[in-house]
Amino acid sequence: MLISSPSNSRIKEAIRIRERKHAEGDNLFVVEGPKIIEMALAAGAKIREVFFTDHFTAKNEGKELLGLLSKKTTDICRVSDHVFAKLSDTETPQGIAAVASYPVLSLDRLPFNATSLYVVLDGVRDPGNLGTIIRTSDAAGADAVILLEGTCDAFTPKVIRATAGSIFNVPLALATDDQLMAWRKEHGIKIAVTAADAPRSIFEAELTGALAFIFGNEARGVRKAIKDSADLFVKIPLYGKAESLNVATSAAICLYEAVRQRRGP
Amino acid sequence: MLISSPSNSRIKEAIRIRERKHAEGDNLFVVEGPKIIEMALAAGAKIREVFFTDHFTAKNEGKELLGLLSKKTTDICRVSDHVFAKLSDTETPQGIAAVASYPVLSLDRLPFNATSLYVVLDGVRDPGNLGTIIRTSDAAGADAVILLEGTCDAFTPKVIRATAGSIFNVPLALATDDQLMAWRKEHGIKIAVTAADAPRSIFEAELTGALAFIFGNEARGVRKAIKDSADLFVKIPLYGKAESLNVATSAAICLYEAVRQRRGP
Repeated sequence: MLISSPSNSRIKEAIRIRERKHAEGDNLFVVEGPKIIEMALAAGAKIREVFFTDHFTAKNEGKELLGLLSKKTTDICRVSDHVFAKLSDTETPQGIAAVASYPVLSLDRLPFNATSLYVVLDGVRDPGNLGTIIRTSDAAGADAVILLEGTCDAFTPKVIRATAGSIFNVPLALATDDQLMAWRKEHGIKIAVTAADAPRSIFEAELTGALAFIFGNEARGVRKAIKDSADLFVKIPLYGKAESLNVATSAAICLYEAVRQRRGP
Repeated sequence: MLISSPSNSRIKEAIRIRERKHAEGDNLFVVEGPKIIEMALAAGAKIREVFFTDHFTAKNEGKELLGLLSKKTTDICRVSDHVFAKLSDTETPQGIAAVASYPVLSLDRLPFNATSLYVVLDGVRDPGNLGTIIRTSDAAGADAVILLEGTCDAFTPKVIRATAGSIFNVPLALATDDQLMAWRKEHGIKIAVTAADAPRSIFEAELTGALAFIFGNEARGVRKAIKDSADLFVKIPLYGKAESLNVATSAAICLYEAVRQRRGP
């Protein structure tokens, strides 16, 4: 059976899920394209529903992936190119998309040891920045990315694309300010915040031990209440005339300086 | 006089310039919003033409900036909100835009000394990545950003926004492969390329002395011909499951590691 009408109820529901407007309690989202779907599978994401076009299964790799997916769900829909274009969030749809779910953890379920490295985001709003930070956190071997309230949704197509699949590699948690503070106190996790007027450079600071870097909103930075709880204020030195760095750039410099100090050259 | 029709010839020409479709030899582009226009003025960009709305000049800061601009050009047009919305590239237009020009240099006009640090881009296509790299290059005190053929245009609104004004702070040059090779040979500038299979980590490499980092296309990386000319192959270590980093993230890590080695903690 082929779905050829964009007003089909399953298509409409999938679009609501893609836009993260569905009512359900599950963390449902849409992943698109063979590469990210393979990463979702490898990471153990639950696949609920699959949509594909004949163009996709015309290729052998397409048939193979669909074979793998058919072991995970029986909800597999063949759709017309026109319908797929509606379902897709990209300008060059690749003919395969899935509705998937993946757990977002609470802080008490995060891995912890004496040298854990965490990334906490306080109101990052740009999907590209959020996705890039998740990708960099994965690369740097961070133990988790924690999203405080006011941070943008991590499971929209733009964020998922910007993570290049890393959204399935690094544990993600949601937390309130109070939960964060109780958790860091319980485990003795130091909090580091970057600020332009910090007394010392990131390259002088001691970044070993259990540590959480907090990065803030693109315009306003980290909220004062959170800043006031920091153990470590560090600045990334600015040598030209730029007044600040992009938040994903700051995160990369901080995380890799921590990695350098921890792992040695 | 108020321009209230989007089909006015000056508006149409300004939109062509914004889209970088104008025929002229000058490097003309559109800058939008008071903050970036102030940075353009401070950097000595030539202002050719200004468009503003009554909403913009209703505020004192608006009147002040228009006063400054009127010393630079007599081509100042009052336009309706409707016309400004057509002219603007953003969803929340700020009521002021200017057609400006700014020099793009040839390599022989770039500053050089024995510790110069350059960023060369070989086919970076995403405007957000290009803008972020220019901003980070400014922050790190790089001497210039050099764009090889196939790299995206640096003077479109998206790139200019992503630079947060840094496009006016760091010298920009355009070059062919041959020009780059002749220039690096003449000055004895080392070329560094990041590659996943490089023998050593960026943190082990010696990044002092006159050095040009080359970063490549988002999908294909640095072209082989350019790679083959490199003196230094370095990798950014990946500790999680991520297969690679975003190009602007890689550039930030490389540039700040060079800065750390050069300036000390």
